[in-house]
Parts: sequence; structure tokens; C-alpha cells
Amino acid sequence: MRKGGDSLDISEMYTVRQCYRDKADRFVRLYGETNFAGGGSALDVPYVWKKYGAIPEELYPGLNYGEDNHVHGEVDDVLKSYVEAVAKKPTKKVSTAWKDGFDGVLDAYFGEVPETFEYKGKTYTPKSYAESLGINYDDYVAVTSFTHHPFYEEFILEVPDNWINAGYMNVPLDEMKQIVDNAINNGYTVAWAADVSEKGFKWYQGVALMPVWKDESTLEGSELARWVKLNKSDRESEKYKIDGPMEEIEVTQELRQQMFDSQETTDDHGMVIIGIAEDQNGNQYYKVKNSWTAKQVYDGYIYVSVPYFLAKTVDIMVHKDAVPKAIAKKFQK
Amino acid sequence: MRKGGDSLDISEMYTVRQCYRDKADRFVRLYGETNFAGGGSALDVPYVWKKYGAIPEELYPGLNYGEDNHVHGEVDDVLKSYVEAVAKKPTKKVSTAWKDGFDGVLDAYFGEVPETFEYKGKTYTPKSYAESLGINYDDYVAVTSFTHHPFYEEFILEVPDNWINAGYMNVPLDEMKQIVDNAINNGYTVAWAADVSEKGFKWYQGVALMPVWKDESTLEGSELARWVKLNKSDRESEKYKIDGPMEEIEVTQELRQQMFDSQETTDDHGMVIIGIAEDQNGNQYYKVKNSWTAKQVYDGYIYVSVPYFLAKTVDIMVHKDAVPKAIAKKFQK
Amino acid sequence: MRKGGDSLDISEMYTVRQCYRDKADRFVRLYGETNFAGGGSALDVPYVWKKYGAIPEELYPGLNYGEDNHVHGEVDDVLKSYVEAVAKKPTKKVSTAWKDGFDGVLDAYFGEVPETFEYKGKTYTPKSYAESLGINYDDYVAVTSFTHHPFYEEFILEVPDNWINAGYMNVPLDEMKQIVDNAINNGYTVAWAADVSEKGFKWYQGVALMPVWKDESTLEGSELARWVKLNKSDRESEKYKIDGPMEEIEVTQELRQQMFDSQETTDDHGMVIIGIAEDQNGNQYYKVKNSWTAKQVYDGYIYVSVPYFLAKTVDIMVHKDAVPKAIAKKFQK
Amino acid sequence: MRKGGDSLDISEMYTVRQCYRDKADRFVRLYGETNFAGGGSALDVPYVWKKYGAIPEELYPGLNYGEDNHVHGEVDDVLKSYVEAVAKKPTKKVSTAWKDGFDGVLDAYFGEVPETFEYKGKTYTPKSYAESLGINYDDYVAVTSFTHHPFYEEFILEVPDNWINAGYMNVPLDEMKQIVDNAINNGYTVAWAADVSEKGFKWYQGVALMPVWKDESTLEGSELARWVKLNKSDRESEKYKIDGPMEEIEVTQELRQQMFDSQETTDDHGMVIIGIAEDQNGNQYYKVKNSWTAKQVYDGYIYVSVPYFLAKTVDIMVHKDAVPKAIAKKFQK
Amino acid sequence: MRKGGDSLDISEMYTVRQCYRDKADRFVRLYGETNFAGGGSALDVPYVWKKYGAIPEELYPGLNYGEDNHVHGEVDDVLKSYVEAVAKKPTKKVSTAWKDGFDGVLDAYFGEVPETFEYKGKTYTPKSYAESLGINYDDYVAVTSFTHHPFYEEFILEVPDNWINAGYMNVPLDEMKQIVDNAINNGYTVAWAADVSEKGFKWYQGVALMPVWKDESTLEGSELARWVKLNKSDRESEKYKIDGPMEEIEVTQELRQQMFDSQETTDDHGMVIIGIAEDQNGNQYYKVKNSWTAKQVYDGYIYVSVPYFLAKTVDIMVHKDAVPKAIAKKFQK
Amino acid sequence: MRKGGDSLDISEMYTVRQCYRDKADRFVRLYGETNFAGGGSALDVPYVWKKYGAIPEELYPGLNYGEDNHVHGEVDDVLKSYVEAVAKKPTKKVSTAWKDGFDGVLDAYFGEVPETFEYKGKTYTPKSYAESLGINYDDYVAVTSFTHHPFYEEFILEVPDNWINAGYMNVPLDEMKQIVDNAINNGYTVAWAADVSEKGFKWYQGVALMPVWKDESTLEGSELARWVKLNKSDRESEKYKIDGPMEEIEVTQELRQQMFDSQETTDDHGMVIIGIAEDQNGNQYYKVKNSWTAKQVYDGYIYVSVPYFLAKTVDIMVHKDAVPKAIAKKFQK
Repeated sequence: MRKGGDSLDISEMYTVRQCYRDKADRFVRLYGETNFAGGGSALDVPYVWKKYGAIPEELYPGLNYGEDNHVHGEVDDVLKSYVEAVAKKPTKKVSTAWKDGFDGVLDAYFGEVPETFEYKGKTYTPKSYAESLGINYDDYVAVTSFTHHPFYEEFILEVPDNWINAGYMNVPLDEMKQIVDNAINNGYTVAWAADVSEKGFKWYQGVALMPVWKDESTLEGSELARWVKLNKSDRESEKYKIDGPMEEIEVTQELRQQMFDSQETTDDHGMVIIGIAEDQNGNQYYKVKNSWTAKQVYDGYIYVSVPYFLAKTVDIMVHKDAVPKAIAKKFQK
Repeated sequence: MRKGGDSLDISEMYTVRQCYRDKADRFVRLYGETNFAGGGSALDVPYVWKKYGAIPEELYPGLNYGEDNHVHGEVDDVLKSYVEAVAKKPTKKVSTAWKDGFDGVLDAYFGEVPETFEYKGKTYTPKSYAESLGINYDDYVAVTSFTHHPFYEEFILEVPDNWINAGYMNVPLDEMKQIVDNAINNGYTVAWAADVSEKGFKWYQGVALMPVWKDESTLEGSELARWVKLNKSDRESEKYKIDGPMEEIEVTQELRQQMFDSQETTDDHGMVIIGIAEDQNGNQYYKVKNSWTAKQVYDGYIYVSVPYFLAKTVDIMVHKDAVPKAIAKKFQK
Repeated sequence: MRKGGDSLDISEMYTVRQCYRDKADRFVRLYGETNFAGGGSALDVPYVWKKYGAIPEELYPGLNYGEDNHVHGEVDDVLKSYVEAVAKKPTKKVSTAWKDGFDGVLDAYFGEVPETFEYKGKTYTPKSYAESLGINYDDYVAVTSFTHHPFYEEFILEVPDNWINAGYMNVPLDEMKQIVDNAINNGYTVAWAADVSEKGFKWYQGVALMPVWKDESTLEGSELARWVKLNKSDRESEKYKIDGPMEEIEVTQELRQQMFDSQETTDDHGMVIIGIAEDQNGNQYYKVKNSWTAKQVYDGYIYVSVPYFLAKTVDIMVHKDAVPKAIAKKFQK
Repeated sequence: MRKGGDSLDISEMYTVRQCYRDKADRFVRLYGETNFAGGGSALDVPYVWKKYGAIPEELYPGLNYGEDNHVHGEVDDVLKSYVEAVAKKPTKKVSTAWKDGFDGVLDAYFGEVPETFEYKGKTYTPKSYAESLGINYDDYVAVTSFTHHPFYEEFILEVPDNWINAGYMNVPLDEMKQIVDNAINNGYTVAWAADVSEKGFKWYQGVALMPVWKDESTLEGSELARWVKLNKSDRESEKYKIDGPMEEIEVTQELRQQMFDSQETTDDHGMVIIGIAEDQNGNQYYKVKNSWTAKQVYDGYIYVSVPYFLAKTVDIMVHKDAVPKAIAKKFQK
Repeated sequence: MRKGGDSLDISEMYTVRQCYRDKADRFVRLYGETNFAGGGSALDVPYVWKKYGAIPEELYPGLNYGEDNHVHGEVDDVLKSYVEAVAKKPTKKVSTAWKDGFDGVLDAYFGEVPETFEYKGKTYTPKSYAESLGINYDDYVAVTSFTHHPFYEEFILEVPDNWINAGYMNVPLDEMKQIVDNAINNGYTVAWAADVSEKGFKWYQGVALMPVWKDESTLEGSELARWVKLNKSDRESEKYKIDGPMEEIEVTQELRQQMFDSQETTDDHGMVIIGIAEDQNGNQYYKVKNSWTAKQVYDGYIYVSVPYFLAKTVDIMVHKDAVPKAIAKKFQK
Repeated sequence: MRKGGDSLDISEMYTVRQCYRDKADRFVRLYGETNFAGGGSALDVPYVWKKYGAIPEELYPGLNYGEDNHVHGEVDDVLKSYVEAVAKKPTKKVSTAWKDGFDGVLDAYFGEVPETFEYKGKTYTPKSYAESLGINYDDYVAVTSFTHHPFYEEFILEVPDNWINAGYMNVPLDEMKQIVDNAINNGYTVAWAADVSEKGFKWYQGVALMPVWKDESTLEGSELARWVKLNKSDRESEKYKIDGPMEEIEVTQELRQQMFDSQETTDDHGMVIIGIAEDQNGNQYYKVKNSWTAKQVYDGYIYVSVPYFLAKTVDIMVHKDAVPKAIAKKFQK
């Protein structure tokens, strides 16, 4: 996002922490009959900004306990166990102390939230700081493309990370691509939630493709003899190898939907699309920034082919000005 | 509701069945990380009417297997086990057959849904029949009164039965009462979701009160001696006895909220408020129709005191014309 | 079997489906205190033929949902979850609807069973079609060889796949071999249930042996030095390598029994013995057809050494005429 | 049974112990995919006599640990936990020690089994003692009456207590009664397995009936007023009260089957029918001996009405000479 | 205890809180393979005084969340879930934050612990306050009487509440009684841990006896007829009724041990013996203060017979000066 | 230990067996709220010697069931399942038979314990044999070094294997090393319990180090390119390779504590330190005997570097005469 959090270096952990609070409240109210997990969507960011405000990263790194990284498994498990214990209502009623205790745990793992703080010579509360950023919650829209709901209406995307029950604009597949292209071409970045557990998502190699994979049933002669002798994992790695541009499958709206319905596509991970690139054959790629280790080929970026984007995008979030007028108009509401 | 389902004798089981289908779809899409249960809210009825239509009760009683009553536990458990097995994705992807199998189970327990049917000399589809009823989905609004969200805005009520993530109008407690009074006085009925597991909800006696219960710590002398000799269950039943009008507690917005937050108030059961009555002392009661056995004092009706209503109402659904103008105006949207 | 299902191309999935029905009935009647799983024995085929009939493969492929292969894990799990839910009897009694629901699920995954069908110009029911095949259920006998029951009597083989509690002829080990040899030499095929999870069962190499494996404790000098540096999986694959005829262990009745009792031998998989072959050293092998991928050395066949056969056969099923008279006579019954 | 165990005072616990051994063997062989429980059928007695022999009660009371009664829950649970641990095969194979350990546990709870013993001046092994009793295993037949299998054939009754997979003669309902009447009239007793958890089975009152229960929906006036004020358990006990002969329901083959299929009839308990009696109205009852406390009205006997017998009998076991010739003839085998 | 906490009104909740901390530490160190529960022994009090100090009750009531009583089930469950989540080590190592989070939860439920506080005009830390009380940890000894360890040695009593692995003096049964009598007669109170779930422990009646209960097998005639007609719970309450002094069983060392080994005696509850009394027949009772509701016959006290004391005492804690010299001498250490 | 069990060839399995008995007793007494597992500490040996005695290895190999090795998983699981079943107290009390049954299982897996035995011409009981060895239980002390308890006091080490709640001497890290060095230099061996699941514990290579591992974030150019292409397991094995002396990390008391608190150091395995050695660079190593396969580089020995020893020692047990006087003096008790 042009005015996005990254460049301003807003504390991510502050968002994470406040989402945990709201998830816990909702989990207990629903008697534990919903999910409670670390994940979230790009829309969590404006949600927290609006409701709780923001803090600069340097003032709230959210690493309070002498570790370089979050021991995420532990804090997730501890919080989940905590709310599950409350939601079981062992004494038939829920105490008024549980929320303070939950905050105590958040303080221990993320650090205490300051009521006010000094930043660049001014004093802020989280809310006043968020307001000072001049970002409007309603400026961001989430977009996706699925056929189990009508196009050009909003629907509540049924993925666990959409825990805030946010509405998503539903557009045909080609229009979802137009929105991204338009955004990038006009200097906006795009928050991108996609499946990253596909065979074709090669992080260390820096590319994500939807190749037509090698078909072993066409092997013959010495090639077959060699293949028969491979062990299972070698067969696998041979079959799913990428070492250069490959023919990719054609991704239609139907195929995309089928992969979503069968849950081959799952809601794995959030990244940011920051640019458009081309390979030697003129094929278009999206240049994507990912928070994983920078110790790979492109120092933390990956090039995503158009077929991969069309098939494996769960949803995108963009500034509403980045949506082409023609598309925006089709939404009445 | 003046134009409500009961008088028209619309099939309830058709609504139940179609909700099961949508719950199953949602459950599988969310990887099983949500609840799947028989319950629902009054808003399910217009939701199904709009999406799937309706069938007359006599054409779809929904009792397909030689029983007088639904063996609800079995069908609930069978359906839940089924979707849980699917959601575990034993083969890493979800088949395309599971929905047909789910429908097969629904057919077995509720009866097959006719594509078209004859009724009073006309041929209908469920959708065309629902349209013929002249009822508009958007005419019904759900209302509640809680302080953990701002008044005069809609919010998604956090109770498991609100599985469709419907929005509820949030109003101050006295205005919630005004809406009901206004509706009844203008000939509308009100769908009422309330906690029915309170000590003061005496179904067989036909009254629901919030009494100031007897305080055993004030007992002395022979009364105490008698009380000491009672066994636990007799002590309990003595303490919570109602045998006539009793002093009731005063229910404020705060008390209501606290009982909701501590989950003393839970989302138990849906009934219909059909009238207003008074006792010998001039206290107001709501006359409520309940689907439980009619073998009680008032042939299936119960009189609910105002304190009970204020404290234990989870939410109400009314025709939007039944909401006083002055209140309706406070909602921008 | 000379008149066997494969050559006639009888629908296997029809057998599978009907077994599921009977397994479900038995599972519920036994209050869930038995197993319910996809597996079965060769005897299931005549069992279903006799009880429910048969359908040609082309008319009942049993793949009803747009997949090339059965998503077996899902259908197994869904059916098991279903019957477990019923068997728990949540309402203290079992409904009459559950079987119809179960059939609905089977219809979804395997396709509906036609009451009658046209085949090569005639109309059949499954039962009349099975009768038209001229195969007699009682012509097939199951044979095994174990010492925890007396020889020359029938006993109910205690393996989960024998869910129909069929009786097996128990003969000494050499006579079990004679029966197979006699059958093959007289043009019968033999259904063979054997353990296929042994180190010596090399599917891709097309041989199954019981070798005397390499003993690393005899290594010395540079061989030992090399071996010490191997990682665990390389050590394993070195130890259990087959690359030509190897010395095999001698399999006695006692050893066979001990491997069965200790459950090193388990009831894994059904195949068909179709011939006898010899290697360069004159050792006898059984040529076995297996339904796994044909993308191995012998296009879907495997050569099984006599020691492997003697040790790892769980049971065989043959036409009774294929049993040598001298052996058959020892069974009174 | 005329020559039955009770009068000879044969050790019941010896039978129980030996059945546990065989159940354990079977449970482990089936990889734990079957039930393992204390229950059994009347056929267990001849099964053990034939396979392991018998011991007089006084020489093997089976109470080895200073208790007056078996702490059945503990021994059941300990044995079950033991075989479950073995069947999980933690080391991928089953040891040869587990059976000795299992016997060690049986020794501790039931006492060691003597290899030989002195009894009335003679030395016996359990097997020689059983032979000395002159009872022939094959003289006892089990009979039942259900329509989910054809009449006049044997089938394996699908109840958990039939863990030996014994065959039961299946006869029409009236013939099952004829067999019992014939047996009693000819001086045989009949082992009777029946559902004893019915409302009409009043052990302390000494009668078992199938009454047409009181219908509260017919109540009116003061009777209704009184009933409304009863608490739940009082309502229940009023509804299901027996205080003299009552009108009973008519039990047909269909009703019997339906109650079995829906598992309202369950396989609860084994008793012995020892006589026939009549009440003041000339209705027939079976006089039944039950092993429960004798501290009830008839010192340990209960009178079972014909409708109760017809509806709730799971199966009977009688000496084959007690079966009327005309019925026996209908069984070919 | 003469100098005991009660008279000084020391905060019990401070002890409870600090024990939770140490239990949590131990639980995590033992990888969760131990118990973690609210219970504790009388020895916890000196243990905490010595290690952490003490706070006056009025300064640390330990009720921090607007409730009159601790919602004990919730805080127990929340803390247990928390430490279990940590002990599972989801990330293979334990973070350094978990203890702070645990403290945060304790703060929420019990209130923050002041580092220093003002009391009666002086400033204390918890440790300096405890020291100011002039009580010595080593002055208190725990005593019990069991034969599975040698007398006159200390042993670690194997009950879950002894989580600090404290040593207990083991004396013959009569000497345990002498210690209590001696203590009471010299003005000491005795902390008493005993089984309170016995039929003979009648809290509301204010007595605890070990009666020879009514034997229904001796009933005859009309008494039997009456008894037969009682329902199960009435039979029970009749059998175990106390309405005056009753003959009690004789409690020997052996009987006591047997009831402990068979776990009829369990470690239920801590109380305080404050006096000795006699009934009309000259039988001795201990007067015991219990923290349960004072709304019973003796305003919160119960009279415990000598047989009850001998049979059901798990252990006692007394000031060491209260132990008779002759007994103390038998302990070398 | 100079007089240690190994050289005398005392039966280890006798110790294991007797510990199981005491663990079982303790587990049941604590209502199953503790751990029950095969593991133990070096202190178990003197514990059993003192309480139950000892038997020569050749007379009690403890392998009773025709296997060359203990099928440890099975016996562990069987025993654990057994005591868990007892501890659940299905009948509300624990029988007196359970211990005999438990012994019966131990007999089956380990062999019966002789009451007396002949050895080298003399007759012994286990206790008299243990006494004849002239070893004094109190001569052995356990030592460790942790800062969560004060130095120079004994504390109960909080590791599951310390199930006997033994006290450990706590000394500063350098003194723990002095104790070992002093012991070895004076001809004593040292029982060593250490973490053996570290990357630096290379059993087959015969060394245990705490290396400063390769840091991939410093890779550049072709080294990086090569590393990027490795698969995950190759990256791992490259990173943690040892092929000669390597720089090791400096182990301080703080680092040691931190690794223990975070449970990177766990209580894995007991070995024996038998000597001191030096590498080519003059670095000191401990020569350690381990019971694992001798098929490695040093025939069953491993050389442990000083940093490894300091970091990963959980505790040691030595003869008390092996503790330097100066250190011993600091313990009052």
C-alpha cells in the first residue's frame, strides 16, 4: 500500500496482540465453538488501527523475553489453552478476572502497551498516533474471485483467517488480475494472501509457477529403468523439479474454484505484491515481498507467474483508489 | 409475525434441512474450525426463504422414518460426524462427492425435497412458493441490547446460533422493550430468543420471573433446624420455589450485560411473544408461545415478567414496521 | 480362478459397496464393538455374489464423482464416522432412517445401484446376472496353515479382513503349497492374501524374497569405516538391498507360526497367483498379479519365491476342484 | 439344564477365566479391532468344558484376594488395558511373554488353576473331570427368533456377548415359545438371555411385564393439576408404576424385530428359566432364577410374563432333546 | 496452632498463590509428568513463610475480581491449561516469558503482591513480616501412622497434596492419638487432614462417626416388605442414617492401613482440631473447625468420634513441642 | 564406581524390576497423578540394593521370553496400562489382588525372582548377597550444579528420572568438574547422566562436542549458490557436520542454567565416565562407556569434550570418598 505500514515501520506485533484480545473475547462469547489461532488477514491491520490505534515498531517491537524471534508455538498454545479453559466454564459462569489474566500473558510475551508514548518529539496515545497517520480504514478493500457466491456482491470469505467476518468484493478472475495490475501501475502495493504450500512455490529458487509436471508414465527404455531404481523421495524430487521456465497449466475460473473447493488451495500466508516483471520469454510475473528468510536467491523476493497468481491467490487487499472505476461501478453498495 | 410462518403452516423442517446444508458447506470450508450444531436463530427463516424458498408443512413434515418425533440426537450426531470426517481431509483434498452424500443423509432423515409440488391447485417450486407468500426478507430486523458494542449500530451478535453472521440492531434496554410493546400493540408478533435454563423459568407452572430468592442465611430457630435436616435437592427446591407473585430484582443495563458476559445468560431457545398481560398487582407480563409440550398449565403458553424479559432476552426479531420511528431513525444505515 | 471375476470384468466396486452395507449393519448391531474398515478377503466376492448378485464393471465402475481414482481415505472415514455416530445411540434407540442415509452416502461415492440393467442384449437384476455366470458360491474354499488350531478342521481365521467369519481349511504347510501348485498346474488361478510390508517384497524390482540379510556385525576394517559414516537411512537401504538371487532363509511350520503370532506377518493385501516360474538357478517362484501401478519392471507382476510364499501367505482361496483329492479327503465335513 | 452346572456346583469362575484367555488371544490376533469385555453367552459353558474342562466350585471359587465379591470393574479394566497395550504393538512385534503375564494377572484375581485335583476320592485334571460329568457339548443348542435372517437356518447372532461366533437356530416366535414350554414340561431348564433394563423389569417386585403404560396426555382436571406439580423423577416413577396385573401390549414378530433393530432390546443378562406359573387371571409366567441379590420378594426369582418373554428374549440355550421333533426337523443341517 | 495463622489473620491466598508459582515451576521442569492442582497440605504454610514470607489478610484478601468467592474451578483450570501448554514445549524449548505470563494470571485472579507494605505503623516486605511473627518453620512437624513404612522414621507421604515431598513422622496409631490429645491438652491446635467423603461424615448434623451400619439382610416380615418398596436413593439414605449415638466399628492399625491401601480413605480436606469433648455416654470426640459454611448445627464446627479419627486421619501437623517427649525420642533424626 | 556393579556383573534387570514395583505402588497411591516410566537414575541402584538386595547377572538375566533383547516398548506399555487401570479405581476401591497380578506380569517378562540362590558355592537371598558385596548405600552421592537452588545444599532434582525424590548436592560448575577429575584421578568411575540428543553428540563418530556451528548467513557467491540448491536435510547435515576438532562454545554457569531452564538440555541417558584423554591440541576429554551398540568407532566408548560435559551433564553419582575434601566440607549436613 502506498501509504502502507511497512514504510512507516508500524509495529506489527501491536496488531497481533490486539487481535489476540478480540479473538479471545469472541472465543469465550461463542462458548469456544469457533477457532482461535494466530493467523489473520490483511484486513486485521486497518481493523486494529481503527479500533485500538497503532505504535511505531521501534517503540513496540513485541519481543519482550530475550529471544530474537517469537517462540510462536508457545505463545499460541498458551493463549489457546487459556481461553479454552475459560470457555469450558468450570464454575458455570465466567469470571471478570479472566481478561486481566489474558492481558497479563500478552504483556509477558509481547511487552506492556504504553498508554501514551513520545515519538519524534510529540506525545501520542496509540489511537492519536494512528489518526496522525492520515490513513482511513474505509480506504482499503479486500477482493477475491470465486463462483460459490455471486459476482459483484460482497460476501464473507469462508477462510479461518477471516475471523473478523469481513466482506470481500467478488469479481471475475480476469478483473481480479486487472485490479492488481492497475494498482501496481499506479504506484500502489497489494497485500496478497496465497497458498504457499504448492510444489511449484520454490522459495529458495525465488519463483512460483504452476508447471505441467513431468509424467512418468511416458518413460521408456533406459529412462524407465533408471526411474524404477530411484527411491520414493528421489522420484518425488525429480518429478517436481523446476530449473528454468516451464510450460504452465491454463488457469480458468472453474479450475481455480475446483482447487479451492477441494482445498488443494488453502489459506496459507500473507505477502505483498510490489511490482511486475517479465522473463526472457515475455511472460509476466509479480514481484512479491515475503517476510521469510532473505537467505535465498533474490534476497527475500519471489517472482510469481500469472498462472500461479490466478490459481493460488486466496484474496488481495488494495487501496480503493487502485480499483479501476469500471469495476468499482459494478458494486452497487 | 403478522404474516408469520406458523399461521401459514410453513414447513419448519425444510428450513432446518437447508440450514444444515449451508452449515456443512461452511464447516468444511473453514477446515472444521467452527461449530456445527442443530441450533439457529429466528433469522434463519428469512435467510432460507430468500435463498432456497419454502414448502407447506403438510407437504414436507420432515419426518421420514416412521417416528413421531425427530430422533434429533442421532441426526445431529450423524451429520456432525460426517462433516468432521470430510473436514479432516484424509486424502489431503476434499472430494466432489461429499455434498451428494450429505444430501443423501438429509433425504433419509427429513425426506427428499420435491423440485416442484402441487399446492391448493397450483404448481410451485420452493422458491416460487416462497415468493408467492409476499414476504420480504429485508422486512425483518433483529434487535438486541448490549454495551460491549456501541448503541445504534449493527453488530454481529457473538452467539453460536448466529451462524449466518447476521447483523443485530443494538439499542438501549428500554428501547428494546419499547420495540416489543409497540409490535404487540400493533398486531405483530415477536420472535424471542431467551435463556430458558434459569431457576425462575417455570415451564410447567407457566411463569418466568426473576425473583429475589429466599436467603437461608437469615434462618433461625426451628426454621433453621428444619432446613439443616433437608437433603441437598430438597434445600435447592425450597430455595427456588415460586408459588405466586414474588418480589423481583431490578434489571439494569449493567446487570443485563454482566449476566451476559459471565454467561449466566446463555442463548438457549427460540419462542414467540404474542401478547401482553397483567397480574393481579398490575405487573406486566409477556404472553409467550413455546413449542414444548402443551401438557402444562396454560396449554403451551408461558407468562414472562418484565424483569425476566429485560434480563434474559438474548435477542428479538420483528417486522421492521414494528420498530418505532424514533428508534429506527437513530440507525443511519 | 478359471472362471474368475477379472476375465469377466465384474464390478469390484459393487462388491465393495455391498460389503460396506453388511459391515455397517453388523457394526451397529454389535454396538460398535467390532472393526469397520475397508478391507476384506477374497471370500467377500462369492459372499456378495450369493447374497446380492453382481454387475458388469462397465455398468458399475463405482466412480461417481469426477475423480479418476477413489478418494478412499475420505469415503472410509465418512462411513466409519457415520456408523460410529449411529452406534453411540445418542437417543438410546437406533432410528429406522440410518440405513437409508448410509445408502445415500454410498450412492454419492459409488453411484446408485440399478435395480435392473441391460447387458449384451439381455435385462438382468444383479442377482439374475450373478446366476447367469454359472458360478457356485460353494465351489470356492479358503485354505491356510497354522498350528494354533488343529489341522484338517475348519476354523474362523482371526484376521480383521475375515469380517464375515468365514471358515478356513487348515492344512500343513507343505500341503498348502501342494494345493497352489496343483491349482496352477490345472489351469486355476489362486487368490493370494499375503504380507506385502516385508523388506523382501520389492514391488518396483518385481521380486519377493526372504533373504538372509547382510550382517553388519561382521564388518571390519575399511568396510566398517565406510559403514560407520553412512547415515541411518543409507545403512538401512544397504542392509536390505536385493540385486540378484540371494540365499534365503528356510521356512518351517514353526517359523511361519512364530512370525504370525508375533504379528511380523500381517494381513496386508490380496493378489492373484497366475503361474509358476524358475530363475537361472532352478529356484521356483510364483508369478503374481497385483493391482498396484503397472509402472514397474514386469508391468504389474511380481515373482514370489517359495520361502516368501511359505512364510508370508496369510491364506489362499481356490476352486475346490483344484484341491488334491488326497488332501480334500482329510476333511470329514 | 437337567444335568446343569448349578446343581453340580461347577466353578463358574473357571469358565470366566478361561474365556478371558481366549478373548485375549483373539483380541490380540485381531489387532485390537474387536471387543474385549467380561460378558459372554450361555454357550461359553459348553465351549470351555470341551476345550479346557471344568473344576468343582468348592475347589475353584475364583475369589483369590480377600474380597467377598469380585471387584469386577477392576479386573475387567486391568485385563482390557493389558491386551490393548499388547495389541498396539509398540515394538512392531508381539512378544512371546505377554500370555504368561496375562495368566499371571488371572492367577492374581481368580486363583491359580490346579493341573490336577482331588475330588470325592478321585484325582482329576480339569478335562478328565469335565469328561466324567458325561455332558456332551453338542447336546446344547442356542435358539432365537429374528427376521433379519431366514428361519430354519443357523446364523451367527450379532450381539457382543456371542464372541465365540456361535451359530443360533432361528425359528418363528411362537416356536421359540414352544421350545421353552416343551423343555420345562419335560424337566429341562432353559438358559435365558434377556434384556433386563426395561421399565417393566421390576426385580425387587419380582415381576417382568410389558404393560400398556399410563398416558399422561389423557389427564384432565385435578389429576392434571396434581401431575403438573410433580417433579421430573416423580412423574417418571408414577408413569412406570406396576402394582398388580396390568394390561400388556401384544408382541408380534415384527414388534420384536423392531425393538431389536432399534436396540431398545439389548443383550443384557443371563438367567435360567426353571418353571411355568399362572396368575389369578390365568396368565402364564415363566419362573426365572437370577443370580442377583436374593433380598427381594421371591428370594431371587422373578415371574416373567409371556409378552415380556416374547419381546425381550435375546436367545435361549436348551438341551437338544428338549426341542420338539417337529421343529428340529425343519433344520436340515 | 497456638501461634497459628488464623488468630493472626495471615492471608491464606498469599500462601495459595505462592504455592501455585512453585507448583508451576516444578510441573514444567518435570515435563508435565506430575500433578498440578489446587490442593496442598498444612505444611505448605510454613514452607511459604520460610521461602516467600507472609502478608496480613486485610492487605491481601486475594479476591481481585469483584466476586465474593473465588471462582476456584476457573482459576485452577486456567493455570493448569497454561502450564500444560508450556510443558508440551511446542517449539522444543521453553521460553523465558512463560513465568511472567503465569504471574500475570495470578495477579489477575489474586491481586498483585506488594513488594513492601505498611502494617500497624511499620513497613514490611512479606519476608520481613513473616520474620516479625517469630514463628520458626522447623517448629512444625507432620505426623501420620501407616505400616507400609517403618515406624519411627520419616517418610515422604504418598498423597498428591504432599507436592513439596515433605517428610512425615510415622508412629503407631495409638501414639498418633496421644500426640493430638497432648497437643490439645497443652493449648495447641492441630492441623488435621482427613477423608470427608465418608458416609459417616455428616457436616450438616455436625458429627463424624464410623457406625456399624444397618444390615438389610437381617430384615424380615413387614420391615422387609417396606424396604423392598423403597427406591434406590431412599434405601441408601435409610441405610446410612445417623440420628444419635451409634455403635461404631473398632479401628485397628490393620483396618486403617487396609482402608488407606484400598483408597477408601482418600486425602480430602484440611481442618483444625481445636478441642476435646464427650457425649452423654462418655465417648470422646474431637471438636474440629472447618472452613465450610457456618450454616449448620454447630456454626461451622463438627464433632469427630475417636474411631473416625483413627480410621480417617490422613495426617496431622503440630508444633513440635506438642509431641510427647517419649514419642519424640524414638526418632533419632 | 570402583566397586561398581558392572565389574561384579550384578543383574541390572533385577534393579529395573524392583523399581517397577515401587513405581507402581507409588503411582497407585498418588491416584495416577505422577509419571510411570521405564527411566531412572544412577541412584536407583543403591536404592534397590539397600531395600531389596541384588542377584548376579548370570542368575537373573531378566530375559524370560525367548528374545535376545527386551521388547521394552511392550513391557513398558503393558505395565503402564495396568497401573493406570488400577489407579482409575473403577469400583471406587483398589483391590488387594492388583499387586500380585503386577508381579505376575513382571515374572512373565523378566523371570521369577528366586527367594534364595546358590552362587559360587554359597546360598544367598538377594538381600544377603547384596550385603556380602560390602557396598554401603550411603557411600554414594549425587551431584549437580544449578542456580535455581542455593549451592552447598541438597535439593530434590526436578527431573522425571529422579522418581525416588533423592537429594542432590548442588555445587558451582567448576567444582562439579573438580569432583569428576578427582574421582577419575583416584581410580573411581563416575555415573554420568547427560543429554545425548544434541547435534554435537556423534555416537558413531565417537565424540561429543559443543561446536560453534557453521553460520549460513555469512555465505556468499558460489558457496551461497550451492547452499541454496541443497534440500532441507542436506542443509541440516552440512550445518551440523563434525569432521575433526572444532572451535567450541564457552560454557558458563549461566548458559548451562539457561539451557536447562529452556529444556534444551533434557535428562536423556545414563553412562559411565571411566577416564580422561587429550586430543592433538591438548584439549581435555572424558572417556565414557555407553551401553549402546559397540559397532562404532571406539567399540562402545565416546570422548566427551569439557564444554559438552559442562553444558550437558544433568548429574553425576560418585563414591563420597571421591569428592574433594574442600568441597565436601561446604555441606553442613
